[in-house]
Amino acid sequence: MYSFSCDYEEGAHERILAALLETNRVQTPGYGEDVYCEQAAALLKDRAQSPNSRVYFFVGGTQANCTAISAFLRPHQGVIAASTGHIAAHESGGVEASGHKVLTLPSPDGKLTAGQVEQAVRAHFDDVTHEHMVQPAMVYISHPSEVGTIYSLQELTTLSGVCRREGLLLYLDGARLGCALNCEQSDVTLADIARLTDAFYIGGTKMGALFGEAMLVNTPGLDRDFRYIQKQRSGRLAKGRLLGIQFIELFKDSLYMDLAAHANRMAQKLRDGIAALGYDFYAPSPTNQIFPILPSAVLSVLSKAYGYSPWCRVDEHNEAIRLCTSWATEEAQVDAFLAALQKETAK
Amino acid sequence: MYSFSCDYEEGAHERILAALLETNRVQTPGYGEDVYCEQAAALLKDRAQSPNSRVYFFVGGTQANCTAISAFLRPHQGVIAASTGHIAAHESGGVEASGHKVLTLPSPDGKLTAGQVEQAVRAHFDDVTHEHMVQPAMVYISHPSEVGTIYSLQELTTLSGVCRREGLLLYLDGARLGCALNCEQSDVTLADIARLTDAFYIGGTKMGALFGEAMLVNTPGLDRDFRYIQKQRSGRLAKGRLLGIQFIELFKDSLYMDLAAHANRMAQKLRDGIAALGYDFYAPSPTNQIFPILPSAVLSVLSKAYGYSPWCRVDEHNEAIRLCTSWATEEAQVDAFLAALQKETAK
Amino acid sequence: MYSFSCDYEEGAHERILAALLETNRVQTPGYGEDVYCEQAAALLKDRAQSPNSRVYFFVGGTQANCTAISAFLRPHQGVIAASTGHIAAHESGGVEASGHKVLTLPSPDGKLTAGQVEQAVRAHFDDVTHEHMVQPAMVYISHPSEVGTIYSLQELTTLSGVCRREGLLLYLDGARLGCALNCEQSDVTLADIARLTDAFYIGGTKMGALFGEAMLVNTPGLDRDFRYIQKQRSGRLAKGRLLGIQFIELFKDSLYMDLAAHANRMAQKLRDGIAALGYDFYAPSPTNQIFPILPSAVLSVLSKAYGYSPWCRVDEHNEAIRLCTSWATEEAQVDAFLAALQKETAK
Amino acid sequence: MYSFSCDYEEGAHERILAALLETNRVQTPGYGEDVYCEQAAALLKDRAQSPNSRVYFFVGGTQANCTAISAFLRPHQGVIAASTGHIAAHESGGVEASGHKVLTLPSPDGKLTAGQVEQAVRAHFDDVTHEHMVQPAMVYISHPSEVGTIYSLQELTTLSGVCRREGLLLYLDGARLGCALNCEQSDVTLADIARLTDAFYIGGTKMGALFGEAMLVNTPGLDRDFRYIQKQRSGRLAKGRLLGIQFIELFKDSLYMDLAAHANRMAQKLRDGIAALGYDFYAPSPTNQIFPILPSAVLSVLSKAYGYSPWCRVDEHNEAIRLCTSWATEEAQVDAFLAALQKETAK
Repeated sequence: MYSFSCDYEEGAHERILAALLETNRVQTPGYGEDVYCEQAAALLKDRAQSPNSRVYFFVGGTQANCTAISAFLRPHQGVIAASTGHIAAHESGGVEASGHKVLTLPSPDGKLTAGQVEQAVRAHFDDVTHEHMVQPAMVYISHPSEVGTIYSLQELTTLSGVCRREGLLLYLDGARLGCALNCEQSDVTLADIARLTDAFYIGGTKMGALFGEAMLVNTPGLDRDFRYIQKQRSGRLAKGRLLGIQFIELFKDSLYMDLAAHANRMAQKLRDGIAALGYDFYAPSPTNQIFPILPSAVLSVLSKAYGYSPWCRVDEHNEAIRLCTSWATEEAQVDAFLAALQKETAK
Repeated sequence: MYSFSCDYEEGAHERILAALLETNRVQTPGYGEDVYCEQAAALLKDRAQSPNSRVYFFVGGTQANCTAISAFLRPHQGVIAASTGHIAAHESGGVEASGHKVLTLPSPDGKLTAGQVEQAVRAHFDDVTHEHMVQPAMVYISHPSEVGTIYSLQELTTLSGVCRREGLLLYLDGARLGCALNCEQSDVTLADIARLTDAFYIGGTKMGALFGEAMLVNTPGLDRDFRYIQKQRSGRLAKGRLLGIQFIELFKDSLYMDLAAHANRMAQKLRDGIAALGYDFYAPSPTNQIFPILPSAVLSVLSKAYGYSPWCRVDEHNEAIRLCTSWATEEAQVDAFLAALQKETAK
Repeated sequence: MYSFSCDYEEGAHERILAALLETNRVQTPGYGEDVYCEQAAALLKDRAQSPNSRVYFFVGGTQANCTAISAFLRPHQGVIAASTGHIAAHESGGVEASGHKVLTLPSPDGKLTAGQVEQAVRAHFDDVTHEHMVQPAMVYISHPSEVGTIYSLQELTTLSGVCRREGLLLYLDGARLGCALNCEQSDVTLADIARLTDAFYIGGTKMGALFGEAMLVNTPGLDRDFRYIQKQRSGRLAKGRLLGIQFIELFKDSLYMDLAAHANRMAQKLRDGIAALGYDFYAPSPTNQIFPILPSAVLSVLSKAYGYSPWCRVDEHNEAIRLCTSWATEEAQVDAFLAALQKETAK
Repeated sequence: MYSFSCDYEEGAHERILAALLETNRVQTPGYGEDVYCEQAAALLKDRAQSPNSRVYFFVGGTQANCTAISAFLRPHQGVIAASTGHIAAHESGGVEASGHKVLTLPSPDGKLTAGQVEQAVRAHFDDVTHEHMVQPAMVYISHPSEVGTIYSLQELTTLSGVCRREGLLLYLDGARLGCALNCEQSDVTLADIARLTDAFYIGGTKMGALFGEAMLVNTPGLDRDFRYIQKQRSGRLAKGRLLGIQFIELFKDSLYMDLAAHANRMAQKLRDGIAALGYDFYAPSPTNQIFPILPSAVLSVLSKAYGYSPWCRVDEHNEAIRLCTSWATEEAQVDAFLAALQKETAK
C-alpha cells in the first residue's frame, strides 16, 4: 500500500532531523526569542528582498491564519475568501471562533479575481444599511489554491492594486508556497509576494519540515503587539528554536525549492501519464496536487494498493480524486501507479 | 413627505402607551421577573397551545437571534440560513461575534427547502475530514422571509421533519410573524409553529409595540441557564415589565392580529394598484413588504414625496424597490401614492 | 409592602411618557438616525461643554459597557476594574464573552486609586514575560461606585493623569451619574467628566427614564466604526428615537438633575434617620444607595413591610443591607420606614 | 554561561530524536489518526489504570488548557483558578478569548483548597442575582503548581469530592506532572489523578519531549465532538504522529519518570546546598522549581555566569529568584553554581 493522499504523511527531510540533533543540547531562551529564529528570520527577509518585514513562526497553518485575522481585523470586520478557501471550509470555524465572518465568494478554480473583490466591496458599502453588514477588511488567497492552481504575476498585481485602493489587506496563505513558486508556469517570485501582500506565510509542514510555517508581515505597524495575540491563540511554541532551526535548514541553501521541485515533478509525471491514457482532470493544477477523473470501476481496483483523497462524483460512472505528492514521494511508486492504471484502463 | 421605508418609523399603537401609563407607578422587581411578564408568558403559551414552552422577552430581534444561537449551540456548531437571512446579512456579524459560523444557502425567495437542508447536512458529514468543518446544528428561517414570502404548513412540516431526523434544531425568526399568520395565503397557525420548531420569537417591534420580541423555547431543557446567557448578551432589560405590559396588551385580545391585518391590507392594496398599472414584482410577497419594479424615471419623481427602500437595479431603466407598510400606515397615503404613480405612468 | 430594593422598580417620570405620546405618530428613520437623537446629542454635548464628543445611545448599561470595551480594545488587551465593578461582578461575563479579561483590583469602597492603577500597570509590563499576560489598556470606574461612593475632582484628575501617562483609556460608567453629580459632597461637573475621560455614559434607566443610556466618546477617532460594533452587540434600537426623545426630555431643562436630587434627598433622609437611631453603615455613601448595618431580628420584622437588597452578613447578629431610592421614592414611605425601624429598635 | 531559567531550554532527550528518525519515512494518516497515537494512547490509559479515558494530544499546554475549557464549558460558565494559575496569569487571556471568565482565588502556595472552592461556589449561588454572575463550572489546578508545590492524596481527594458534590469539573494541568509524581513527598499516583479528575494532561514539553502534552478525558461523554474544537483552536497537528511517537518513547518504559527524577534530584541538590548556606526560600517546593531568597549583591555576581528567572523583591537587599532544573540539567553545573554561591556568601 502506498499513499498519495496528502503531503504530510511522512516525517521530515533527513537534513531537518540532523539539524535538530546537532543543536539538541544547546541552551536557548524559549518562545522564539533565540538565535536560530533570529537567523532564520534574517534569511527569509533576505530571500524575500523585504528587509523591513517582520517574521513570526507558527506550528501550523490554521494557527497562522487565525492569529493573523484575529490580530489584523477589528471586531466588525470580515475576510473575503473563495468558498473553497482553507479558512472558509476546513478550519472548523476557527476564524468565526475568533469573532470574524468569512465572506465567501464562489470560485471554480480556487482563485479570486480582482473584479470579484471589487464587486463584493461595493455590495457592502453601497447599501444604506452598510453598518448592519460585516465590513470587508481583508482578502485571503491561497497560492497555490486548494485545487492546486496558481496566480500569475499579472493577476496578483491587479488583486493587490484593488485591495490597496479599497483599503483592504491582502493576505496570502502559502501552505504549499514552494510548489507554487517552483512550478513551470509560475512567473511570481518570493519578492513579488512580499511586495504585493500585507502578510503571507511560507509553509513548512507540507514542504519537508516536521512542522512549521513562517509568516512575514510586510506592512509596517500591522504586527503591533503581535506576539501577545500569538500567545493568546496558543501560537507560541515553548521550544521556538525548533522552528528557527528547521527554516534555517530549508533556506540556507536551495533545499526548500529543491523539495518543492521534486513534489511538482512527481505530480506532473502522474498528470502526464494519466492524461496520456485519455483521462480528463477536474482542475488544471501545475503543482503537487492533481485531480484526475477516473472510472469508479478502475478506482475500486486501484484503491486496494494506493491511497488517495476522494474529491467529488462527476457522473454515474466517474469520480474526481486528488493525488498529492510531496518531497518524500518515491518515483518508483509513481511509475507503479501509472502502470497499474494503464493495466486497469486496458481491461 | 410620507414614508413606506420600513415598519418601525412610528412609535407604538396608542393602547400600548396607555397601558404603560396606567401601570407606571406600580413597583415590580426588575429583569423580567415581574407579574406582567408572567401574565404575558401565560397568554402567549395559551395562544400557541404550547403549555410547556418557556417564554423569554427581548428588546430586539438581533439580540434574540444572537442569544438563542449562543445558548443553543456548542462552539464548533454552525447555523444554516438563507443567504438573505437576517442573521447572515444584516446583523453586522453578531452571530460570528459569538463564535459561530452562519452556513449560507442560496435562496431566491428568501426561504429554505427541506431538500437544501438535507444536502447541506450531507456535505458536512460525508467527507472524511468532517471534523475540519463546522458542524451544522441549527436551521434558521424567517417567517415571513426577508422578501415577504411565507412557508406553507406542508413546507414547514417537511422542513421540521428533516431537522428532527438529522438532529438539527429548527429556529424561526418571527420579526413580522403577525403578517405571516394573518395573510390570505397562510395555512399556518401559531400552534403549528410552536409544534414544529424548537424555538421561535413573536416580533413586537415591527408589529405595533414600542419594541420587544417574545421568544418561546419549545423543546424541554434547551433553555437551561438561558437567563445567564441572555444577561451576558445584554439581553435582559432592567425594567423588564415594559415587555410584559406590551405583550399583554397585544395578546389579551386580537390587537396583535388586527394590527398585522391592517399592515397586510395596506401592502396588498399597494400591490394590486401597482400591478393594475402593469408593473411587475421582484418577489411575490403576500405580506407587508412588497417589491415592485418601477422605471427609474418614475422613481425620481415619486421619491420627492414618498420614502421607500431601494432594493436592486433590474436593468438599465428599471429598479426594484421595497414598500413596507405597518400597523400605522394611513390608507389615504396609500391612495395618494397610487394616484401619483398612475399619473407618472400615464406620462 | 413598599420596596427600597432598587432604582428601576417603577416605569418612568410622567413627562417622559407624555413626550413619547406626543411624538408617537411622527415618522422618523430607524436606528438612532433621527432628529430626536440628533437634538438630544446636541443638548448633551452642550451640557458637557464638549462640542467634539460623539454621542451614542443604548438601551442598557451592560450593553453600553460591553460595546465600548469591544470597540476600544484589541484582542489581547484587558480592562482594569474594582472587584466590585459592574463589569467584573454583575454582567454574567459579558466582557469575557467579547474576548477580554477584566483585571480586578481589590477595593473596599468601590473606587480605584491612581496608585493602584500605576502598580497594576507596572506588574504587567515589568516582567520579562509580559507578552504572556493580558495587556492593560483601559481603566473602568463607576461614578457613583457600586457602593454609592463618589470620586472627588482631585481623585478623578489624578486618575486621569495616570491613565494618560500610561497610555490607558479612562472609561466611566455613569449608570447613576445624576446622583453623583448632584450630591452634597460632589465637586465634579459633567464638563469635568467629559474632559477627564475618554468615554463615559450618562445613565437614564435608573435616573427616571423608561430605559436608556447616553454614551459620550470624547477622544477623537476612538469611535471609528462604532455603530457597526453597536449593531453587532445588539445595541442599536430599531426605534432609536425612543432614546432621543427621552434624553431631550431629561436634559432640555433641569429634570435629570431634579430627579437625582430627589433620590439623593430620600436616601440621605433614610441615612440620617438610621444613624440617629445609633446604627452604623457598611460604606459611607452620599448618593441614592445606602448600606446600614441592622440586627437580623429587626430585619425579620421590617422585611414584612419593606423590600431591600441583602448585602452581607456582618456578624452573628447583624447584617448589612442596601436601601435604594429613586426619582419615584415617596417621602411618606421613607418616614414610615424610619418610624418602623425606631419602633423595632426601641423594643 | 549556564542557564537554570526554565525547563525548555534544550531540545529533547536523545531517545526521542532517535525514535523520530527511525519512523521518519513510514507513511501515516495525519491529524493524530495514526497507529503511533493509538499505541501511545493505549500505553497512557494503561499507566493511568483508566481504560475508559479518551486520549488527545496537543503541541503545548496553553492550547490544551484553552481547548478543554472551550469544549467543556457553556458560554456563561467560568473556571475557578488560583491567581497564580497558568490560565489566570500567563496565557495572554487565551481563556477569555474563548469567551470564559477565570474566577481567581488568592493562593500563596499556588494551590487551591476544598474550602476555598466551596466558599467561591456559595458566593456565586447564594445571591439573588446569581444569574448576573458567571457560573462556576470547573476547577483548574496545576500539579505541581506554578510555585513547585504539590497536592497530597488527601488534599486531592477532598477537592475532588467538593467538585463532584457541587457539580464542578476538576481539571488538572500537569505541565510538569512527572516531577510531581516522582518527588519524595508525593503519595499521589497517575491512577489517582485519573480517578479523581474529569480531565488532566501529562506534560511532555517540560519533561524531555521536543514538545507535546497528552490529555486524558476521564468522564464519559465530556469529550463529545472534542476533535472539532481541537481543530477550531488550531490544536490538531498535521503530522500528529510526532506526538504519538514521542509519548510511546517516554512511556514504553520508565523514561518519563527517570527524566523527572533527574530534574527533581538536581533541584533538591540546589535547594539543600543553598539552605546549607543559610538562605531561606520563597515557597517550599519539592519539585524541579525552587525559589531561594538571595542578596541582590550576590545575584549581581552570579547573574554573570548563570541564568535564572527573577521572581520578586523581598526587601531592600534581597530578592527571590526561580531556579529551574530539567531532564537535561548537568550535575557539574549544579555543583559549580553552589560553589560560586558559597564563594559569594563567604565574602
